[in-house]
Order: sequence, then C-alpha cells, then structure tokens
Amino acid sequence: PAETASGVAESSDIAAQAYAPLDTFLRRHNGPRDSDVGAMLQALGFASLDEMVAATVPASIRLSSPLEISDSEYAEKELLAKLKAIAQKNQVYRSFIGTGYTDVVVPPVILRNILENPGWYTQYTPYQPEISQGRLESLLNFQTVVTDLTGLPAANASLLDEGSAAGEALVVCLNSARKKSRNAFFADRNCHPQTLAVLQTRAEGFGAEIVVGDYKTFDFTALGDRLAGALVSYPDTYGNVDDFRALADTVHGLGGQLVVAADLMSLAVLQPPGEFGADIAIGNTQRFGVPLGYGGPHAAFFATTAANQRRVPGRIIGVSRDAAGNRAYRLALQTREQHIRREKASSNICTAQALLANMAAMYAVYHGPAGIRNIANRIHRFTQVLASSVTRAGLVVENESYFDTLRIRVPDAAAVHQRANERRINLRRIDAHTVGVTLDEAITREELALLVEVFGGDVAALDSLASVAAPSVSESAAVPEGLARQSAILTHPVFSRYHSETEMLRYITQLQNKDLSLANAMIPLGSCTMKLNATTELIPITWPEFGSIHPFAPREQTLGYAHMIDDLERDLAAITGMDATTVQPNSGAQGEYAGLRAIRAYQASQGESSRDICLVPESAHGTNPASAVMAGLSVVIVKCDAKGNLDLADLEAKAVKHSARLSAVMITYPSTFGVFEDGVVRAIEIIHQYGGQVYMDGANMNAQVGLTSPGHMGADVCHLNNHKTLAIPHGGGGPGVGPICVKAHLAPFLPGHPELTKADGSPQSTVGPVSAAPYGSAGVLPVTWSYIKLLGGRGMTQVSKTAILNANYMANRLRDHYSVLFTNENGMCAHEFILDTRVFSKSSGIQAIDIAKRLQDYGFHPPTMSWPVPNTIMIEPTESESKEELDKFCDAMIAIREEIREIEEGKQSRDDNILVNAPHTIAKVSAEEWTHGYSRQRAAYPLPYLKERKFWPSVARVDDAYGDLNLICSCPPLDNYQ
Amino acid sequence: PAETASGVAESSDIAAQAYAPLDTFLRRHNGPRDSDVGAMLQALGFASLDEMVAATVPASIRLSSPLEISDSEYAEKELLAKLKAIAQKNQVYRSFIGTGYTDVVVPPVILRNILENPGWYTQYTPYQPEISQGRLESLLNFQTVVTDLTGLPAANASLLDEGSAAGEALVVCLNSARKKSRNAFFADRNCHPQTLAVLQTRAEGFGAEIVVGDYKTFDFTALGDRLAGALVSYPDTYGNVDDFRALADTVHGLGGQLVVAADLMSLAVLQPPGEFGADIAIGNTQRFGVPLGYGGPHAAFFATTAANQRRVPGRIIGVSRDAAGNRAYRLALQTREQHIRREKASSNICTAQALLANMAAMYAVYHGPAGIRNIANRIHRFTQVLASSVTRAGLVVENESYFDTLRIRVPDAAAVHQRANERRINLRRIDAHTVGVTLDEAITREELALLVEVFGGDVAALDSLASVAAPSVSESAAVPEGLARQSAILTHPVFSRYHSETEMLRYITQLQNKDLSLANAMIPLGSCTMKLNATTELIPITWPEFGSIHPFAPREQTLGYAHMIDDLERDLAAITGMDATTVQPNSGAQGEYAGLRAIRAYQASQGESSRDICLVPESAHGTNPASAVMAGLSVVIVKCDAKGNLDLADLEAKAVKHSARLSAVMITYPSTFGVFEDGVVRAIEIIHQYGGQVYMDGANMNAQVGLTSPGHMGADVCHLNNHKTLAIPHGGGGPGVGPICVKAHLAPFLPGHPELTKADGSPQSTVGPVSAAPYGSAGVLPVTWSYIKLLGGRGMTQVSKTAILNANYMANRLRDHYSVLFTNENGMCAHEFILDTRVFSKSSGIQAIDIAKRLQDYGFHPPTMSWPVPNTIMIEPTESESKEELDKFCDAMIAIREEIREIEEGKQSRDDNILVNAPHTIAKVSAEEWTHGYSRQRAAYPLPYLKERKFWPSVARVDDAYGDLNLICSCPPLDNYQ
Ligand SMILES: Cc1ncc(COP(=O)(O)O)c(C=O)c1O
Ligand SMILES: Cc1ncc(COP(=O)(O)O)c(C=O)c1O
Ligand SMILES: O=C([O-])O
Repeated sequence: PAETASGVAESSDIAAQAYAPLDTFLRRHNGPRDSDVGAMLQALGFASLDEMVAATVPASIRLSSPLEISDSEYAEKELLAKLKAIAQKNQVYRSFIGTGYTDVVVPPVILRNILENPGWYTQYTPYQPEISQGRLESLLNFQTVVTDLTGLPAANASLLDEGSAAGEALVVCLNSARKKSRNAFFADRNCHPQTLAVLQTRAEGFGAEIVVGDYKTFDFTALGDRLAGALVSYPDTYGNVDDFRALADTVHGLGGQLVVAADLMSLAVLQPPGEFGADIAIGNTQRFGVPLGYGGPHAAFFATTAANQRRVPGRIIGVSRDAAGNRAYRLALQTREQHIRREKASSNICTAQALLANMAAMYAVYHGPAGIRNIANRIHRFTQVLASSVTRAGLVVENESYFDTLRIRVPDAAAVHQRANERRINLRRIDAHTVGVTLDEAITREELALLVEVFGGDVAALDSLASVAAPSVSESAAVPEGLARQSAILTHPVFSRYHSETEMLRYITQLQNKDLSLANAMIPLGSCTMKLNATTELIPITWPEFGSIHPFAPREQTLGYAHMIDDLERDLAAITGMDATTVQPNSGAQGEYAGLRAIRAYQASQGESSRDICLVPESAHGTNPASAVMAGLSVVIVKCDAKGNLDLADLEAKAVKHSARLSAVMITYPSTFGVFEDGVVRAIEIIHQYGGQVYMDGANMNAQVGLTSPGHMGADVCHLNNHKTLAIPHGGGGPGVGPICVKAHLAPFLPGHPELTKADGSPQSTVGPVSAAPYGSAGVLPVTWSYIKLLGGRGMTQVSKTAILNANYMANRLRDHYSVLFTNENGMCAHEFILDTRVFSKSSGIQAIDIAKRLQDYGFHPPTMSWPVPNTIMIEPTESESKEELDKFCDAMIAIREEIREIEEGKQSRDDNILVNAPHTIAKVSAEEWTHGYSRQRAAYPLPYLKERKFWPSVARVDDAYGDLNLICSCPPLDNYQ
Repeated sequence: PAETASGVAESSDIAAQAYAPLDTFLRRHNGPRDSDVGAMLQALGFASLDEMVAATVPASIRLSSPLEISDSEYAEKELLAKLKAIAQKNQVYRSFIGTGYTDVVVPPVILRNILENPGWYTQYTPYQPEISQGRLESLLNFQTVVTDLTGLPAANASLLDEGSAAGEALVVCLNSARKKSRNAFFADRNCHPQTLAVLQTRAEGFGAEIVVGDYKTFDFTALGDRLAGALVSYPDTYGNVDDFRALADTVHGLGGQLVVAADLMSLAVLQPPGEFGADIAIGNTQRFGVPLGYGGPHAAFFATTAANQRRVPGRIIGVSRDAAGNRAYRLALQTREQHIRREKASSNICTAQALLANMAAMYAVYHGPAGIRNIANRIHRFTQVLASSVTRAGLVVENESYFDTLRIRVPDAAAVHQRANERRINLRRIDAHTVGVTLDEAITREELALLVEVFGGDVAALDSLASVAAPSVSESAAVPEGLARQSAILTHPVFSRYHSETEMLRYITQLQNKDLSLANAMIPLGSCTMKLNATTELIPITWPEFGSIHPFAPREQTLGYAHMIDDLERDLAAITGMDATTVQPNSGAQGEYAGLRAIRAYQASQGESSRDICLVPESAHGTNPASAVMAGLSVVIVKCDAKGNLDLADLEAKAVKHSARLSAVMITYPSTFGVFEDGVVRAIEIIHQYGGQVYMDGANMNAQVGLTSPGHMGADVCHLNNHKTLAIPHGGGGPGVGPICVKAHLAPFLPGHPELTKADGSPQSTVGPVSAAPYGSAGVLPVTWSYIKLLGGRGMTQVSKTAILNANYMANRLRDHYSVLFTNENGMCAHEFILDTRVFSKSSGIQAIDIAKRLQDYGFHPPTMSWPVPNTIMIEPTESESKEELDKFCDAMIAIREEIREIEEGKQSRDDNILVNAPHTIAKVSAEEWTHGYSRQRAAYPLPYLKERKFWPSVARVDDAYGDLNLICSCPPLDNYQ
C-alpha cells in the first residue's frame, strides 16, 4: 500500500499488512507528521509531495524508476537481529598484531557517557564557541595530552589517521622549505607499512620524492639540499626503540625537518620526540581508550615546533576571553581554513576525529600521569617476560630494543600462527621465519601464558620471570641508555582531579551541558545535514563483534565486516547510480582526493597524464580546490551567474581554453547555493566533450537520494558524506566517512591498500591508499548500513522529499522577512537555502554574526555563517526536524528581524543593542547593573517557548573569533583563487 | 601488599603484582584520593583509618577476622568477562508463557537515554520538587497513562508488582469498610497464581480471609456483609475476557468493592475497568517497554475512584504552583507517608519503581494513542490467527473469549512442549493436556509460523487466516459484545507531540536537564546512601541474557541466573553474618515485612503464635512499624535517650512487660540518628532473654560491612537495601532490592513462591511469597553481584571506613557552625550525621526547609529533611564523594550559616531574605525588578565555585510542599505511636 507522507500507516493499511512489525523506522526518522505534511504543502501551494518535487528537481535529471535497495525496510528490532547475525560472522580473536593498532580497555564511564551519548556524538565542529565550551575544553585537553607526551609545543585537535598525518607532515616540510627543489623526503623502511603507503600516495600530487631506506645506513648527504625531511618511527614497526639524536642533527644539518611517527603510550615512558630534536610528531591515539573498530575511527595527532605552528593542518583550539572578560575556548585562527584560502592549498582536512579525540583526552583525564605511566610500564614488563620466555625457549628475539613489540625469529612461522590460531590469538605475519607480537594494556597473565605456549616457552616460569623483569622502563635494559623519559607528563591539574568514577562522570556531564547538541534543539547548519542519528543505528558500533576487530585480522575472521561492506558498496552504488564503491576515505575531503586521484590514474592509463587542470566553480566548498591541488591538479575557477547557477558559458570557455589539459570538473549538486540547477546535465556534457571527467561532490546528496543521482546525471565519480546524508553522527567534528562511487571505467583506480591483496598475494589495486586502514573508519559503517537497511529505497526517497519540504517550508515562512537568495524558476530551493543578511549591515550595522549570536539567545544553534556567500546565513533543517521545531526557529528568525528593525528605526542604538550584545549569558541577565536600552527579560526570554525550553550559552560572545566564525560549517569562499 | 587508603597502588606494590590488571575498581569507587585520606584523618586527629574506626565502632561488636568474599576483587574488564560467561548459561528462548509477563520492544531511544543514562537512574525520589521537575512530569505522565487506560480518576506513581498491588487493594477495601468484621475478600481462581499467592500472604497479617473461587458460580450472598471486596483478572490468566458488569453490581450490592487486575495493553482496546464498575484497578506495566528481567523490576499500577483517593498507597504526583505562580509538579499529600503516621499503618511502601514507571510512561509518549492501539490490535490479530490455526488442526481452544492468550487442549502437552523446546520457544505449562500461549508486541510472522508448527497447524494457511482475522478488537468475535473499548485513550497532548525519535530524545533530555542527579553533584540524603552506581555494574542489566528471560522460564534455561543468585545469597549471608538469604523482596520495606513474617512463622512452628508484639524504637524509620502491622504485630514504641541511643531501661521494661507476647524488636544499626550505639549487644541480649527475635533494619549497612555485622551482633534476621549499600541505582525512587538474611533457625521460613518447587513438585517453602516474581527484581541483581565481586571483602571494608571518614570529616568541618546532634563518646558519628537547625527558628525564623532550598542555590541536592528529628537535616555523603566535593558542600553550609547570621543580626529581614526566597531561579535573578535586601549576584552565585558549576532549579519554591518535604527520603517520626 502507498505509504503516507511521514510513513505513519493508517489502520486500513495495517489490515493489509497484518504481520508487519510496528516498530517501523521512517516515521521515527522524519520529523513532520502526516498531518503536518499536508499543512506544509498547502502553505507552499502544492497538492502533493510529488507536485512539490516536480517544481523543484528538473525533470531532465529525475530518475525514471524508483530507487531499489535489496533486502531492506527492516523494522528496528528486526534490523538489530539481522545485523547481529552478520556481526557474529566476525570472530573476535585476541590480536597482538600491533602495527599501529592495539586492543584497549575503554573506561566504562567514557564508553557510556561519551561514545554512547547523543549529548556528545550528535553535534558538529564547535564553530559557535559560546555553546560549545564543553567540547572545546575537552579538545584542548586532547591537544595538551599531545603536546605533553610528544614534548612539542603545538598540536591540533586531531587528524584522520597516522598515514594522512604523515602526509600532512610531508607537506609542512615541503612548504617550509625555501626552494621548490627541496622535494625529497626520506622515510625509514621500518615505519608502519600503511603509513609508508599513504605517504607515498600523498607525495605524488606534490611531486615529492619519497626515498625509503634504512636510516642507519642511508647516505643523507646524497640528497643534499633536496632533503625536505625524514620520517622515522618511534618505536619502529618491529618494536625497536632507537636513539634518533644523531639523525636529527644530520637532517637539520642538511636543512630538513625530522618527523617522528610515535606511539603515544610509549611516550609516557620514553624520551619524547621534542626532546631529541624532532620537528614534527604524528601518530594515532587509538591506544588511549578507543576501540579497534577494524581500523577506525581513531584520532590521529599532529604536534610540532613553535616555528611550524602557523603551518599546522586542521583545527587548533585556543584559549581566549569572552565579552565579559572571562576565559573562553575557541577554534583558533591557524587552521586548515587558512590554508585552503591560499592559491596552493595543501591540506584539505575538514571533518576530523573530534569524538575519538575526546575519548582519548578523557582517557588521559581518567588515568592521569601516574595511571598512564603505570599502564605503559605494565605493558613493558609483560613484554620483557615474553622476551625472556621466548629466548629461553631457544628462539631469537631480533629486536635490539623494545617497548611493547617483539620481532621473533622462529623455525616455522606457519606453525606458530597455527598454534596461535588454536588459542584464538592473532600474531603479526612478517615472513616464513619471523613473527611479530605487540602487547597492550588489556593483556592478562592468562593471555601471556597462552602466548608463551604459542612460542613453546615454559609457562611455569612466568612468575620467576616477572620478578626479574624491570618494573619500569626507566630500569629496563630493553630501552637504550638515555631514552627513558625523565620529564613529567600531564602536569595540568585537569589530569589529576577526576580519577574517581563519580568525579569523572560529573566532569563529562558538566562539559556536555555546556554544549548544544541535537538532543537539545535543531542544528540547521547548511551543508552539514544534521539529521537524526538514531539509537538503533548507533547501538551496533559498540558491539564487540564490530568494535574489537584488528584492521589486519585475517580475512576468515572478518566475514561479518566483509558482508556488511559488500552490502554497503552495492547499496551506495545504487544510491549514486554508479558501478563501484570504496568506503576507504574517512571524510568527504578524503573522498574528493581519492576520486580525483582515480580520475588522474585513469587518464594516465589512457596516456593522458598531461591532463592536469581541474575546473572548480567559485561556489565550491574549500575542500574541493584543496583536494585538487593535493591530487596535483591546477585549479581554474568557473563563475556562477547572479542566480547562483554555474555560468555555462564560462564553463565552456574554460573547458575549451584548457581542453588539452582538462582533467576534471568538480560540481556540487544541488549547488552549494542550495539549488537544483538545471544546467547540470549540459555542464556535464561540456566537460565530457572536452575530454574531462566529472567529479560530483556529494555533500548535498540528502536532496538527491531516490530523486536523481550523480550517475544518472552523468558524473563519473562522486563522494558521499556518510556523516551527513547517511546518518553517521558528526561527533563534534568527526568521525567522518566519505566513500566514493565511480563508473566502471574508474573502478580499477579506486585506492588499494597493502593489506588488500588478491588470493595470489598481489595488490588488489595498483593505486595507493588514502587511509591507513583498508576500509577507513570501518567501525562506524554499521550506522550507515543500518540507516539504508531501515529505510530502503522507498524510505530514503521519502527522506529526500521531506528534507526538501522542510527547507522550502522554512524559506517560505521567512520570505516576507528576509530575502531568500538563489531559488529556481519556481522559487524553490533544494534542501537548504541562504538568507541574505548583507542588507542589514547598512541599515542597522548588524552582521550575520550578530544574528547568529542572537539565535543562541533563542535557544538555537545558528546556521552556517558566511558560507558560501559572505555575511549571509545558510539554513538546512533536514528531514528529521518536526514542523513545530521549524516553526519555532522561524518565529525566532522573524522576531530577530523585528529586533533589527528597532535599530533601523532608531529604537535601539547601533552600538548597544540586543543583537550586538548577544548571546546573553545568565551572568549577564542577572548582573547587578543593567544599562541597555532593552530589558533583561527580552534579552533572555524573547519568545514564550523559551520559558519552557531554553539553552543558555556558557560564555558571552567570544570577541576575537570573528575571523573563525566566518568559516562556519566550512571553508571560506573561493574569491581569492581567481 | 597492604592496600593504601583509596586503593591506589604505589609503584612498589605494582612491582609485587606484576601481572595484576590496572583497571581496579576500589579507587574508582571511593571518592577521596590517598593524599586526601591522610589530610582528612589529620583533621580528625587520627593517625590511621583503623584508629578512626576504633574510635567509632564499639570494640564489642567489631569483627574478629576480615570479611572474606570468595572469588572476588576482579578488575572491571575481567568482571564483565566473568559475568558474561555466567550470563551465557541463561538460554534466551522466546517465551509465550504470559501469566503477567511478556516480551517487549523497548524503544531504543528510551533504552539508551533513560535506562542506560545516569541522568535518569541515579537520583532518588523527587522530594525536592524544584530540582526534580523532569521526573515529576514523567511520573505524572505515568499516572495519566494509568488513569486513562483504567478509566479510573486516581492513580499513584507506581507500586512494586501486581501481587503486592493486589495486597494494597485488599487493604484499601478493608480500611474503607466500616466494620472490622467485613474482612472476607473474594479472589477469582483465574487470577494469576502469583497474584493470588502474594494476596494470600498479605491477608494473613490483617486477619482477612481470602476466598478463592469461580466468580461465575460463587454464592456471594453467603459472605453477606463480611464481603470487603472481590478481585478478578481482566483478561484472566488463561486469556478469557469476561464481562464483569453483573459482578460489580453484586459486589457493590453487598457493600464490597470490585478490584480488577488488568493487563494495561489490553485496556487500550477493551472497555476499561472504571467503565464497568471497578473501584480499583491494579496490574503490571512491564508490557509498556520494560524488559522481562526474569521477573522485575517493573512498575505496578494502582488506580481507583475519587472516593478512595485518600487511601491510595504509595506516592502520588500532583500539580501545584511555585512561589512565582508558575505551574510546578510535586509529590502530593495523600501518600503512604500519611498512612504510616497512623497507629494502624497498613502500607509500608517506600521505594517503588520510578525508573520503570518512567520507562512505561515514555513508551506511551513515544507511541501515542494510535500507536498503542495499533500494537494491541496487532497482538490480537496474531492471536486470532493462532486460534484459527490451532482449531483447524483439530485442537480445542478452551477460551470463550480472548485478547492475547489462549488455553489450548492438546492430546499430549509434553509433546507440544518438546516441539516448542526444539524451536527455542517456551509455552505455559498448565497440565498434561493443556497448554497456554500469550502473544506480545514482539511477535513476528516467523515466530507465529513456529507456533503453528508446534501445534501441528498449517503454516501455508497463515496468509489466508490473517486476511479473515478481524483487524481490530472492536470488530473481533473473540471479544464479547460491548467489551471493545469505545472511549478515547491518551488524549493529553504530551502523548501526541513526541513521535519522531528526534522529538522524543529532546523531550527526554529536556526533562533530564531539570533534575539534579549524581551526574551533577552529590546527593547527601541521610539514610539513602547515594553512592556511585558504576557503569561496569550497570552494563550487564541490559544484556539480553539477563534482560530477556521470563520469570517462569524452565530452570534449565536460567542456570546463569541461578549461578548469580547463589553467589549473591552466599555473599550477602557472609556480609551480614547470617546463614541464609532470599533476594525476593523488592524493597527494604518488603524485606522488613518478609523478615517479620519469617519470625512469626518460626514462632508459630514453636507453638508461640501468641507472640504478637513488636518493639520499635521511636527513632525507627516509618516503614518499620508499618511492616510490623502488616505482619499482624502490635507495635510498642521504645524510647531513645537524649543522646539518641536506645533507652535500654525502657527496652527492658517493655520486654518484661510484654514478655509473653514479645515477638520481635526492630533495630536499625547504626541507629537512624547515625551513631554506632554500644548498647546494641545488650539490647539484643534483652530481647533474646525474653523470648523475642531481633530484626535488624539494614538501611545503614554501609557503615557496617566488614567492620561488624547483624549476625555478629546477634540479630536473627536483617534486610539489606541493595539500592543503598550495594550500588543498585535509586532510579528516581526505585527499583529497589531488599534481600533478607537470616540465622539458620529462620531459614525454613523465608518466603516461597508458586514457581519455586522441589524436584517432586512440592513447594520449596510453606511460607507464602511477598513478591510476584520468585526472585523479585532479579533483573538488577547483576549490579549488586558486580559490586561485591569487584570490591571483595577487603574493598567493601575499605568502603565502610571511607563512608565513616567522609561523614566525620564533614561533621568536623561543620561543627563550629552548626551543632551536630548525636555522636558517640568520642564525638564520632557513623556514616551520617544530623545537624540541629531547630535553633534558627527562634533566632531568625529560619527552618530546615529554608536551608534546604538555599542549598539548591549552591548547586547541591539538600540532605534528608526533618527525619528522624523534625526540623533538622541529616547528611550522608557516602564513600564515593571526593574531598573536594565534601569541602564544597561544607563551604556552602558554612556560607548559609553566615547568611542566617545576617538575619539574626538584623542585616536581612526575617520575611524577605536570601533563605526564605530560595531557591532562586534564573527567571527570578533576571527579573526586571529586584526588591530584595541582598543582591542578585549573591542570590545566584554566593560562592566562587558556582561560576564554574551551577545547577539551576527549574521552578521557584513549591509553596504547598512543606508537608511533603518533612517526609524527605522517607517516612515521618513515630511520635504519634506512643
Ligand atoms: C560541499 C562540501 N564538500 C565537501 C565537504 C567536506 O567534507 P568533510 O568535512 O567530510 O571532509 C563539505 C563539508 O562540510 C561540504 O559542505
Ligand atoms: C532506616 C530505613 N529503613 C527502611 C527503609 C525502607 O527501604 P525501602 O525504601 O527500600 O522500602 C528506609 C528507606 O529509606 C530506611 O531509611
Ligand atoms: O567544516 C566544514 O564542514 O567545512
């Protein structure tokens, strides 16, 4: 039977579906009820949703048949049972594979109250510091952990993984070199293989040469002044803890920088890189209480010297003051937003790993300096015992030194792995005679005994071996003289105050309550798609069958993941109208980069390596040109017309002009201006005509699913933001998942990975990986899988329609009060729209930011500010918001318009009015003195609903954030590229 | 090695414990750090904790050897692995056993954000309405669900289970009868067996006669004016839906009341009891989204007529106004507290089932009227199909009518159960030829097909049968003419506003944020032991292996529960120094009742039935005398001396005077005044000397564990409040678990249960059950099991010491500012202490309640008010509070003392001052006008820490709550008994 608008079945439908379960999802996911949909359509003058769609989406691109997703439309309970059965095809072995990933003991108070808590996982990047002080403080804690442990003064608030962090480090080295010719970068062969592989990939676009060698024997002088930097691993992938002081001198002497990929846990007890001359330290913080998740998501770190501080990629949290002079945290200036402003953007990092960075930071808060050191020393002592036992069993430990990892020479590695397998243990497979073992904080005596058995050691000797093992690294012979850490760690009081569970819970809660999340109110950030992250979708990610799998576990143990990823790849291809998919990229920006690389590799295979120009519309998101640059392309900007549409003439002119070198165009659809442009098909034709490929940025897919698709329109490749369209929570600024889907001709050029091999051991793809883990942030893929399987094609189509309905309903309500920029010929926007607030600057001195801050007083998270058009605001409600919420938001916007009018009419002063003083904190409205031309009550409770529900900013306006706030939800306009 | 005070191991200990895990629990559970403990002891003038204990706990009662708990002191991760292995000994079958318990579909948004959320599960009864408006609103929703569905105007905020609710209904019938001789109560034989059994138990103490019969044939006139009431089940236990209109007339005609035990789900589609003449409706709300949990915890309901309203047992939430004239919810007056004030208290209900009531209420909010009706009708349609299929298979459905339950006659029931077993299905075992089946909302087509197979039906006919089945109860022939519901349900807007998950999540969050929980600040409620409810302890309760087990599942499927309960019974006996344990009572008060019944049954077995007097100290908790009355005992009050100790002379005099009739004494230890009295051993001797038994109220066990024990002191029986001492969260006023532990002579008299039989089918105990489920609130027992196994005897002893330390540290800090009532000869309190605030009444007009309300302004939950001494406050910090938190609280109390001094000194007015106006809401401190003699800032932020952390009350003082607030944490003083 025909589904009604919100998916709530009428009782007559039930008769026809006697056996259907009632815990259906669509009506829980979409906000408006059936009756609301009718009223909303009426307000817009449509008789049906389909009529609305017809007026919004060009007929030329509409799908001719409904989107079909096989094996879908499960009810919620069924879905969990189905997914549990798939999950159980994974085998949870104990993995001592190491290679950058270890098992952990997630502090339960963090698991439940952060990872499983919508108050922490649903919000986005803290662009609005006044209502994000909790996450900002926690991310500042993260940076402090990183700077403390690395011994370097500057750190960012996370990167995607160690591999891409190595790539970022490379770029910092290249960029800080005076000469372009300084483009050789040494990488020690004993770095983790996946780090080397991603680094290799990254180097290509920059024309840098990665020289892999043995740093001990390598002749650095041979590279001379070409040496931009050198990367070593500390400890290295086989466990050795080397003294890099001499290397630092050599590298510095040649004018290069030393980059150290470090294990954060070991740094608690080893001399930190900053103390032996490293310029940059990178690595993974997974080990700080974040589940393995088959490779991610985990927060990578990036720390560097003061000299490099302005080159740090990604986001940095800073400490500042608010309008009342109180301390306030904020996103500081020196972020990727700056970088991508520049012509030669060299980093496209946008969504990072905030949620996981928060977990890691809280792990440090929970354990404190002594606790972390105890954990590190215990790991090391277990490792000593294993080393002794193995040696006494007649095997050779090949390490000269070690912290937690041994490389063991055995007569028959296969036999060792077989014995391990019988005990449900994974070891690292190095070669036929060499096995690797990495211990972790979860290790128990029983497990150590199993390991000893596996290596033929004497279990009875365990106690005596423990008593002779050094109790700490500083007394251990396994660590070279001088490399035990002398300096203190985590000296800030925050790491020593919250060690009881009660105190920890309260600290988490206190921070949480400062942050507006989807659990409080709508977050209408345009281009961010802040939809419901449903509980049923989230529950599976903390199942051990998904959470406790090592990314390099043998294939027979990961059949559940394989099943789920196969489903996803097929379903995402169906959604995008493409032929093949990879889920490897762990953000939208990484997807862009992977997609452009696929295009370039394909063109190379066609003998068209010379195609190196990428057309990018001026309205594009900042990650687009940055990704193009990273892929080695030169960016040429294409104009948009006054209506915000692609200027097809300009496009064609530039395609013609650059036809010989035309590699690709990047198109966002619906456009970043929030409109279904009908020139898109023609634009695609033009590019194809001149030999280019079409990349479609999928950030706005929430308006497309089931109505049209990139493939259907003719694009060759697109990415999806699973953390937007497909329900992965934004986590306060990550995790992200940015799969790319491609037409068949590009399929061979999807990224590979050292671990992705064919049966014969040869690589599955000759193209290098973009992520450290083969399937990127695999651990959160169950969210998207569940979303798709709950809704099916029919449900997702209904979602798209509802997203469009909600946006147009709001635009329509606001139209009499604000001017709505960019709609189609029927006055329709897509799933988001821009309000032009530039006019107020003249009329009243009010800027978009003042409106944003005043919206906080109304209990709402402001929309995206000044992107894609400066000094405007872009509103994207998503389908999950109810009509009541939309109406409240519109009421607030309309009330603010009237407040502006009071300034325009001179009833409030231009310098001291209810907007420029916003947001109003409790401290402010309860101050002894009140000198403003408006009342306290108007400041605090301008509309009646606020008496029932009000979210208070915890600090007043953060003064110096203006520069950052212009970047809200994303990167700045591209004017400066032209 | 010797454990340091907080349990944080020094690194030298670590050397000795090379392999010990580091995620140890004790140091996470206790608040003070090692260094704090030293400072706190120093402030008290002790060199060690043991010295402190020696000055606090009388030597005469100290244990001579350490408390030993076998198989304990697990680290957190180990513990979960260990318990998981035990849990997996349970078999999760699909249970269609019914009998009052069915499987459910817990809405995931409720599961994650209420049941798994410390913001909902850690607080206690909403005694302080200004900081509890969230729960109050939700409980009011619960009452509304109950009144709507039952069609009766008055309901309470939950009872413990259907059985005890039937007992409460009996008492209401008895109490509202004019004559004592009206003491016969009819109960239909087709009520649930456990309901009948608990009712029988309850009747005994009141000397009421339960006449079980078939209401259809029973000659009611034979009972004449002895008929107090009649209980029937609707539907009955075998599924019949009868028309009770004629019965109502008969019962009313004889002057009795009609009590209907109803299934809440069926009431959505069946005529409600209130419309066919019922005076009282009771039942379980488990079916509204609360997991089976092997029998509990679930919220029972109690609804009645306006005429009975003042007799309603337990707590009723009411709607009122605050000082600013805004709507505010509160605990209304007509509660059990009133009842137990009276000489013949007839209900001892204190802790109820608030958390589960909130879940059930939220289930109704989430589904709304149409949703609930759809669920009920779907269940009924499945049942129709099963009935048709079974009938076509040649079997006989014995029901004349049905909603969801069939009683099926089969040739060989054993063979049917065997076929069910093969499909992992449980059916109800009625007799050798009769099988029961109850369907539920979780039923799927696949499961129905399995059931059809089990009964030899034709699976191929399922579709055709569905299409001829009536789509709703109102069209169904299975429900008698006139019994389909005509009236609307859940018409209040709250049940129609929050149907999308986003809206639901926000509603839950909005309510949560109005309530101060342990996630925000300490809740120092004396006699309530608001300690940490650790995540590790809580995680297992939502494992399906514990959550999805029917209480009457066959024993072979519940071996995991059996293992855990065996452990618990043994460990609780060790903790209390007793010989045997039952976990059946689901609150402390139920434990008291069960314990006194065991005493009486024992005495009867000794030919001493005439012993019917219970001595109760005047300081006793109100539940004590109430329980005594319920057990058929007459209460005689024993005095306390000026120091708060038992007046031994008075005790002996009364023991002598009543020696022939002396049944028992009830002693709380440490006393409810918070002191380790050293007369306790003598008191016990006296009672024993005169032939009485000693009942020890275990509410204060948190001060005893590992230091002394009831058994060691000589008590014969005691209860434990697992929801206090043993870490089960208070849930906003329940669940509770009140096991009793007894000496060997009482062991045969622990409560039995119809389902607890020996191998030969005979009852395990001849004593009747006190709870509907054999193991009471089994579903939360994993919390206590985990607590004990994490800490072991050593850890729990450390906990007791720390609880005593924390209390004495606070008392010591406050001593210069307030007078501390009742300490021992060394000036030491036990784990709690009373501050005498009575003096301020004269000096400043300030009452204890004003201090309480002002404490809210300081961000704290007030302590217990006016109990056990009127107009004083009783502070119990527990071991889980850090020194920092204790200090903040003391700072607040001291600051308040200075505020009182300002009134005393005339600097603030007696009528308009910072205390009487407290608590100050945001609305108040930001009001346009400010006319008070103190500043806004002082009102809002009297101490600097509040700038960092402040919890705001959501309403101003609830005016008419004074009467209730005197009852805080529990029941009022006993003066009126004398
Ligand atoms: C249009 C557009 N493209 C690309 C991106 C980059 O996605 P990500 O943040 O996942 O890297 C965004 C992010 O907001 C976007 O809005
Ligand atoms: C001393 C004392 N006894 C008995 C009880 C009753 O326990 P419950 O509320 O679990 O019925 C309480 C509850 O606060 C108490 O403080
Ligand atoms: O952060 C951005 O989504 O650009």
